[in-house]
Amino acid sequence: MKKLINDPQDVVRESVEGFGLAHADLVTVNPDPLVVSRAGGPVAGKVGLVSGGGSGHEPLHAGFVGVGMLDAAVPGAVFTSPTPDQIAPALTVASGGAGVLAIVKNYTGDVLNFETAVELAEADDIEVRTVVVNDDVAVEDSLYTAGRRGVAGTVAVEKIAGAAAERGDDLATVAAVAERVVANVRSMGVALTACTVPHAGRPSFDLPEDELEIGIGIHGEPGRRRIPLAGADAITEMLLTPAADDLGLARGDDVLLFVNGMGGTPASELYIVYRHARALLEGRGVTVARSLVGNYVTSLEMQGASVTVLRLDDELTALWDAPVRTAALHW
Amino acid sequence: MKKLINDPQDVVRESVEGFGLAHADLVTVNPDPLVVSRAGGPVAGKVGLVSGGGSGHEPLHAGFVGVGMLDAAVPGAVFTSPTPDQIAPALTVASGGAGVLAIVKNYTGDVLNFETAVELAEADDIEVRTVVVNDDVAVEDSLYTAGRRGVAGTVAVEKIAGAAAERGDDLATVAAVAERVVANVRSMGVALTACTVPHAGRPSFDLPEDELEIGIGIHGEPGRRRIPLAGADAITEMLLTPAADDLGLARGDDVLLFVNGMGGTPASELYIVYRHARALLEGRGVTVARSLVGNYVTSLEMQGASVTVLRLDDELTALWDAPVRTAALHW
Repeated sequence: MKKLINDPQDVVRESVEGFGLAHADLVTVNPDPLVVSRAGGPVAGKVGLVSGGGSGHEPLHAGFVGVGMLDAAVPGAVFTSPTPDQIAPALTVASGGAGVLAIVKNYTGDVLNFETAVELAEADDIEVRTVVVNDDVAVEDSLYTAGRRGVAGTVAVEKIAGAAAERGDDLATVAAVAERVVANVRSMGVALTACTVPHAGRPSFDLPEDELEIGIGIHGEPGRRRIPLAGADAITEMLLTPAADDLGLARGDDVLLFVNGMGGTPASELYIVYRHARALLEGRGVTVARSLVGNYVTSLEMQGASVTVLRLDDELTALWDAPVRTAALHW
Repeated sequence: MKKLINDPQDVVRESVEGFGLAHADLVTVNPDPLVVSRAGGPVAGKVGLVSGGGSGHEPLHAGFVGVGMLDAAVPGAVFTSPTPDQIAPALTVASGGAGVLAIVKNYTGDVLNFETAVELAEADDIEVRTVVVNDDVAVEDSLYTAGRRGVAGTVAVEKIAGAAAERGDDLATVAAVAERVVANVRSMGVALTACTVPHAGRPSFDLPEDELEIGIGIHGEPGRRRIPLAGADAITEMLLTPAADDLGLARGDDVLLFVNGMGGTPASELYIVYRHARALLEGRGVTVARSLVGNYVTSLEMQGASVTVLRLDDELTALWDAPVRTAALHW
């Protein structure tokens, strides 16, 4: 195992500590329980946004803490849900008195631990609404999930709901906006290589030198099928078409097209995928109105990519465009 | 070779085409000769900034085209210098009548081809000054270089000189600022794995499973030495200390600390390196006044990182902080 780490047990703590030092203008890190929150504390009267999940998907979620997006992020161990007694303080630290929206990727452990944490927070008189993200069209049910997995579409949920909270929407409205993003976002990914969880020390799965896994999960969960090596355009079509079909994209629709890197893929390759995904959408009469290309929801050093489409309307577009100031998204 | 590409011959063209489509608000792509320039064309009366070099280091340089940084970037073939008749039109398209600064990483091919292109531009009455970046302290002379190589410090040169140009400094002043960054910036990198140039189809060098290359070049050129696998803190010290020593960092100095990923390294690992590099600097009585962590000067999918330190003064700090709006740097 070749990694720039010290003791595998210290990876998350040391990494988040470094992150907090590098971005002290944006975030505050509480070491125990480990919570990354917006610098300056909660904003009075604003709905708070909290997300979290296993580490190894950076910049998700801590990289999205800041103005116009999350108020707190809860990093679990690598590929392991954060605990309820770690999530509950995050709900508290994010609370500015107007309630808190919890954004949870659909993995059984995350869903259960957030549920327990929400009960704890509600016992402290913090009103919490939860939205579960399940944008991955690859498979129904999976290694760690009942129903569809939550993957890169989470970025759009956090950005757009964050903008709604920042402009002063109340909890019910922010939650409804988040649900509207969930209803309109679909993703699918491919792995070229596996990744290695530090404390495991060996790759999470075997992927032969001449095969790809279409529909991969962000923890290396099995996808739809393995195929022989193929060109980027052919692979892109295998990702974009199921996502666009499932969403029922129709001529005249506007979308955000988001090509996400899994961590070990060069930017140049992501733009090659973007180029063809865009051409395929345009061929369907769909307009790519907004774009995002880069490593946002990763799987450690996995080589691969995912394609996400979000059907936009005027309000979602305006919320996407609203200012954001976080370590990983900034405009 | 596992890559998200089509024909290896088309990698740069397709990638830059995708880049241009994704960032049409920031850049314009001229397909032949391939040049990426600031959307809206040159700014009248502003010094133009041009950089370029072999592809495979994305987001360098096209990702830095936009407001407050470069006016044009010239992507060569992968790890291959752009040609003079590709660079010369970039100097022209960047010219707003106040002269052009060419920022060149110190590789023999780049230096020679920029020299020829500058002669062509000057024949067209465009005044050009050139600054050569040579921040890599690992080795004197190298596979493709006489003298030190130019690596991640290039980002600081482009950002700070770009801010000077944007505020209206004249060509001599912008060039002097750029030279001051070059004089105050040092870097050193490590490779955990090799990378594969698409048209070569196999790794550029062999690096055994249990070894690292300290002082690696961004094209996989040999560094100072190979060492057995080591912890992140030990590796970080092997990178930071030579860079800081060469720069003569002294108690009381302020620096920008920049931890750069080589393309295939998870963000979490870069923050672990940042954490210890910062501690080492603080141990020397040096203040980390500004920070940058991420994949900015990459080597395709290479796993590894580099550490860059830039000694700051008030003016360099203000220019670093000045607004920038490009695909890869935005604040």
